[in-house]
Amino acid sequence: MILTVTPNPAVDMTWEIDRIVPGDSHRAETGAVRAGGKGLNVARVAHAQGVDVLAVTTAGGATGAELRAELETSGVPHHLLPVAAATRRSIAWVDRSLGDTTIVNERGISPTTAEWAEFVGAVHEQAALASVVVISGSFPPGAPEGLLEALIAASGERPVIVDTSGPLLLAAADAGASVLKPNRAELSDATGLSDPLDGARELLRRGAGLVMLSLGEEGMLAVTRDAVLSARLSAPLAGNPTGAGDAAVSAVATLVAEGITDTETILRRATAWSAAAVLMPLAGDISPRHPELAEDLTVSAIDTEKKDTE
Amino acid sequence: MILTVTPNPAVDMTWEIDRIVPGDSHRAETGAVRAGGKGLNVARVAHAQGVDVLAVTTAGGATGAELRAELETSGVPHHLLPVAAATRRSIAWVDRSLGDTTIVNERGISPTTAEWAEFVGAVHEQAALASVVVISGSFPPGAPEGLLEALIAASGERPVIVDTSGPLLLAAADAGASVLKPNRAELSDATGLSDPLDGARELLRRGAGLVMLSLGEEGMLAVTRDAVLSARLSAPLAGNPTGAGDAAVSAVATLVAEGITDTETILRRATAWSAAAVLMPLAGDISPRHPELAEDLTVSAIDTEKKDTE
Repeated sequence: MILTVTPNPAVDMTWEIDRIVPGDSHRAETGAVRAGGKGLNVARVAHAQGVDVLAVTTAGGATGAELRAELETSGVPHHLLPVAAATRRSIAWVDRSLGDTTIVNERGISPTTAEWAEFVGAVHEQAALASVVVISGSFPPGAPEGLLEALIAASGERPVIVDTSGPLLLAAADAGASVLKPNRAELSDATGLSDPLDGARELLRRGAGLVMLSLGEEGMLAVTRDAVLSARLSAPLAGNPTGAGDAAVSAVATLVAEGITDTETILRRATAWSAAAVLMPLAGDISPRHPELAEDLTVSAIDTEKKDTE
Repeated sequence: MILTVTPNPAVDMTWEIDRIVPGDSHRAETGAVRAGGKGLNVARVAHAQGVDVLAVTTAGGATGAELRAELETSGVPHHLLPVAAATRRSIAWVDRSLGDTTIVNERGISPTTAEWAEFVGAVHEQAALASVVVISGSFPPGAPEGLLEALIAASGERPVIVDTSGPLLLAAADAGASVLKPNRAELSDATGLSDPLDGARELLRRGAGLVMLSLGEEGMLAVTRDAVLSARLSAPLAGNPTGAGDAAVSAVATLVAEGITDTETILRRATAWSAAAVLMPLAGDISPRHPELAEDLTVSAIDTEKKDTE
């Protein structure tokens, strides 16, 4: 079973609008409401592929009730810790004429220290049944120091995949996360190193076993102590990139849960599921075309002496 | 008591964002959630001025529960008819750097015919205690033909103020509404007449007693069979014009409820409350500066032979 941990869940609300004119009023059909936050997207993708998952997160207020109701409707297995603070919202406006999406993410309100202690306890308890633990996304402002380390420790000996940013990315590597999935900007922000391979190696040096580096339309790199592999599609796909990283993490988790550690196999599925997410309007879904995307992409070894990521 | 009728209520959600870049992701503090829809704004403004009001509207789904909870918190007296369809949402993004607001209004889902019959019945029952009835805003797509006429009829002999647009504006005049409050675009759309005075006179000819014509920064006109009065501030105000028209309607309703029919008195309060609404970030609020705004504005009679609205 894959256990996903979402410290800062959100109710994702998406509207499609014919053409957005800043400063104007627009009419739209009823928006789509979905339980979101990166860890819930990871769980949703794996669940849709028939993989056994459990999503652990918090829920509070009227928005927490919406989050719970949507998870029950969609059937994603979940364990929700009730908290006093209302669950945050994330608002997406899709401009149909331009095809782009403008997003406003509420920062979120931190649960209390006592609620966080319960949350770590719930992860510890549920991790006992898991073969891999995924910790994804931001923490609400004001979350206690050491929370990420406590969540990794609560996972025990199981492999832990962490998708986060900022100083937490370094903390995750230091605390023994097995797999990290930064994008290029997150990696250079966290490490201060402009070369992505240097940044990835810094995370490996601190203790990570595998760094999956998403490069957007240029595909993805898998960096281990022994090799650097690159995967990319024959042509970039148009669509909604929101949730593409979560689909990649979900792909990694499904293979790690089966005990598969072959880097090329992991990279191929991660890149294909990520591309398949771009084809779908909502984060947390991947297109059924993912097997042909996995066929279509090219995996190649990078000559690490040249440090050439192109 | 002022009875306000809102056939298409909304949960109004407002976020302030430092600078909105189309196609980007943004972080924001938790948004403000308020029961909205024009008639609820009218009720909120009057209630804040200590005037006896009752807001009649519908509520359905999780959003309907939010609407009810917010009305209970804010203390606006209300009578909510439970309906099956979820209450719509209205999303506003305020760009702090530009000072402008971009809005997405869901169209709304119509209650069933049986629910509308109950709604008209509730208006009929509550109107017995009212001295004026206000019917404000749009109807959801698919609302039955003749609903506005039925709501006006349910108000009995009481004066009815209607703030709506399109063919419903003509229907309101035909059905005996006492006061109508279109803006310039709504009036020319509905009547097909480009001159606003011609448009206002068409509404009077059909049966309205007073047309309050809002002209944005140019103030407001009050048109009766006998006179045309213009009111404007010495200088336009910067701010959020959302809800300014509702504040004007609320001002008219508070005076009509007291039996005051003097056009200049009505025009002065309507223009001042409308301007006072522009100074507030959320629709449904007016600035406590409204008495000085009422002092500041100039009311003048327009020579109707010249049909000059400047």
